Amino acid sequence: MKTMSAETLQALVTRACQRMGARPGDAARVATSLVRANLCGYDSHGVYRLAQYHEWWKKGLLDPTARPVVAAETTSAAKVDGRNAFGQVVASFATQVAIQKARTSGMAVVTVMACNHVGRLAEYAEAIQQAGLIGLVTVNDSGAGQCVVPWGGRDPRLATNPIAMGIPGETDGGILFDFSTSAAAQGRVRQLLLRGEPAPPGWLLDADGKHTTDPACLFSDPPGALLPAGGHRGFALSLAVEVFSGILSGAGLARTDPGPEEMNGMFILALDVTWFMPREQFRAQVDQLTAYVKTSRPAPGAGPVHIPGENSRAEEARRRKEGITLNEQNWAKVAGVLRDLGLPDDLPSE
Amino acid sequence: MKTMSAETLQALVTRACQRMGARPGDAARVATSLVRANLCGYDSHGVYRLAQYHEWWKKGLLDPTARPVVAAETTSAAKVDGRNAFGQVVASFATQVAIQKARTSGMAVVTVMACNHVGRLAEYAEAIQQAGLIGLVTVNDSGAGQCVVPWGGRDPRLATNPIAMGIPGETDGGILFDFSTSAAAQGRVRQLLLRGEPAPPGWLLDADGKHTTDPACLFSDPPGALLPAGGHRGFALSLAVEVFSGILSGAGLARTDPGPEEMNGMFILALDVTWFMPREQFRAQVDQLTAYVKTSRPAPGAGPVHIPGENSRAEEARRRKEGITLNEQNWAKVAGVLRDLGLPDDLPSE
Repeated sequence: MKTMSAETLQALVTRACQRMGARPGDAARVATSLVRANLCGYDSHGVYRLAQYHEWWKKGLLDPTARPVVAAETTSAAKVDGRNAFGQVVASFATQVAIQKARTSGMAVVTVMACNHVGRLAEYAEAIQQAGLIGLVTVNDSGAGQCVVPWGGRDPRLATNPIAMGIPGETDGGILFDFSTSAAAQGRVRQLLLRGEPAPPGWLLDADGKHTTDPACLFSDPPGALLPAGGHRGFALSLAVEVFSGILSGAGLARTDPGPEEMNGMFILALDVTWFMPREQFRAQVDQLTAYVKTSRPAPGAGPVHIPGENSRAEEARRRKEGITLNEQNWAKVAGVLRDLGLPDDLPSE
Repeated sequence: MKTMSAETLQALVTRACQRMGARPGDAARVATSLVRANLCGYDSHGVYRLAQYHEWWKKGLLDPTARPVVAAETTSAAKVDGRNAFGQVVASFATQVAIQKARTSGMAVVTVMACNHVGRLAEYAEAIQQAGLIGLVTVNDSGAGQCVVPWGGRDPRLATNPIAMGIPGETDGGILFDFSTSAAAQGRVRQLLLRGEPAPPGWLLDADGKHTTDPACLFSDPPGALLPAGGHRGFALSLAVEVFSGILSGAGLARTDPGPEEMNGMFILALDVTWFMPREQFRAQVDQLTAYVKTSRPAPGAGPVHIPGENSRAEEARRRKEGITLNEQNWAKVAGVLRDLGLPDDLPSE
C-alpha cells in the first residue's frame, strides 16, 4: 500500500510518458486521465494502466510521438485516426472535434480508430457535458476482449462494451454515467477474486456455461464468462456498441481473429440542446428532474438516492484531500515501469 | 378466447377509428400498428389499447381528426407537435421527418410532444432501419406513469421509459430491439398476476420498499414498484430517456403533478451510415457480427442464441398464418369499443 497525492502521481506518470517519447502536453494529458480515474474511485482505470501502455510501447503497438488526425469530415461528422498515439490523447482530441462540430451544426458524430486504450470513458462524456452539450460515448475492444456471452449463449463473443453519457445540469452537476453492458466490469470481478469474496448471482457463467459465484472462473483456463447486464437488454446494447464503435469507426468488430485486447474503437455523439430550448432552461429542468427523483425515500438498508455521477464527485473530493492509496499490486506495476525507464521508483508514502 | 386473422382485426380497428373521426389513412395507420404489435407477440401493445384511446377520445384528450405538424426545424432537427392526434399517426409522421432529414444531413434528431400513446416503440426504430439508417427511439410518459424506483430508492419516480433501436443488416434482418429501462414492463407483471405466477426476484419492491415476487404488489393500494433494469444501469438510462423524451420535446418530465398516464413524449435519432462507409459494406459487417455472435453455443437448457428482433419476426410469421388469439379480457375491451361506436361486436372466431 502506498498513499500519494494526485500531484505526485501526476508528475510521476507525466515523466514516464515523456521518457517513452510523448510531448510534455500529451504526457500530462495521459497522466491527468489516469490520476483522475484513481481520484474518482476507478482504480481499474487508474495509474496502474501505465504498465500496459509501457508494454504496448515496447512492442511497437503504441506510438507516444504520434498525433491523431481527422481522416475525413463533414460539418457534423468526423472520422478520427488515432495513429496509435496514447488513447487519452486521441480520445480528448476526438471529443474536442465533436464539441466544436456540435456547436456549429447542432449535433455531431465522431468515430475513432487506432486509439489504443482511452481509459475511463466517463471523462469524455464529462468533457462534452462541461461544454454544455449532451454527450454519448461508447467503446468496443476493436473485436477483442471477448469475455461476455450473448444472452442465452455460453461462449463469450463480446467485450464489456461500455456506454457513457453526460447531461449538463445547472447547480447539481447534471447526470454523468459510465457503465459496462455486461453484468459487471472485468475489473470488479478481479477485485472480488483478490479479496476472496464471491460474486453476486447473475454475473458469471463457468466454462461449462453454468451459473457460478466464483470470481476465479473468469481467469481460469478455459475461462468462464460474464453475463450481459439485465439479460437481453445488456446484450442488445452491447451489439449496438459493437456497431457504433467497431463498425462505423473502422476499428474492427467481434470476430474469430481479433487483435490485442483493450485496443478501443470509439464512438462519440454530441448534441447541442440550444436548438430545442435555451440552455439555461434545459439545465434548470435537468436539475428539477434530479431533485425530484431524489425525493424517493431510501429502500430499507440503503442510503439516500444518488444521481449518477454524484458518488464519483464525492470520492474525487475525498481523495484530492486524503491522497490516492494504491495497493501493492498497483504500485508494483507503476514502479516497474519507472525502473525500466530509468526513473526513481523508491518513493515514500505521503 | 377469440382467434382472428390480422386482416379481420385490421378492418375492425380501422372502422372503429374512423367512427371516432379519423381519416381513412390515419385509421388504417393506427390499426396496422396495433395489429402488428399483436402479430409480433406484444399483446400488451396490441388491439386492446383501442379501449384506452376510445376513453381518451371521449374525455377530449385525443383528437382523431388532428394532424401532427413540424412546429420548428433546421436541416437536421425538428420539433413535432402531435396536436393530440392518434399517437401512431404522430409517431409515424415524426419518424418520416427524421428519415428525410437524416438522408439529407447525415443525421437527424426529432422530438415529439402532444402525441398520446405511440404504441409499440420498435415499430418506429424498424421504419428507420428499413430505410437503411440506424434509428434510436425513446419515450417517457410526459412525467406520469411513475412505477419505477430510482436505484436505491423506494418511492417510484420514473416511468418504464423504454428504448428502441434498429440497425440495418443485409440478409439477416439486422438488429432490432425495444426494452423498458425497468426490470420488466408493467404489462409483463400484469400477465404474471393473471396467470397466478410469481415474478422473478429483482423485479419488484412492495409498498414498504422490500423485495417481493408478488406481481399483485404493483396494482395494490398503496402500490409497490418496479426496480430499474440492471440496477444503476437502468436507472441511468431511464434518466437519459426522461431528458431526451420529456425535456427536449417539451412533453414534460417526471414531477409531482404530472398529467394522465401513457401520454408519451418522444425522441427520435436517425443516423445515415453512408457518410462513414458504403451502405452495403455496413450491412455486410452487421451480418458478420450477428453471425459470429450466434456461433456461441447455447447455455445449458437454453435454445440457440437469438439476435434481438429475431423472435418477433418468427412470431409475426406464425401469427400471420395461424391468426391472432385474444384472451377474454383483451377481446372484451375491443368489443366494448365496437358496441359503443355502434359497430357489430359479435364476431366469430376464425
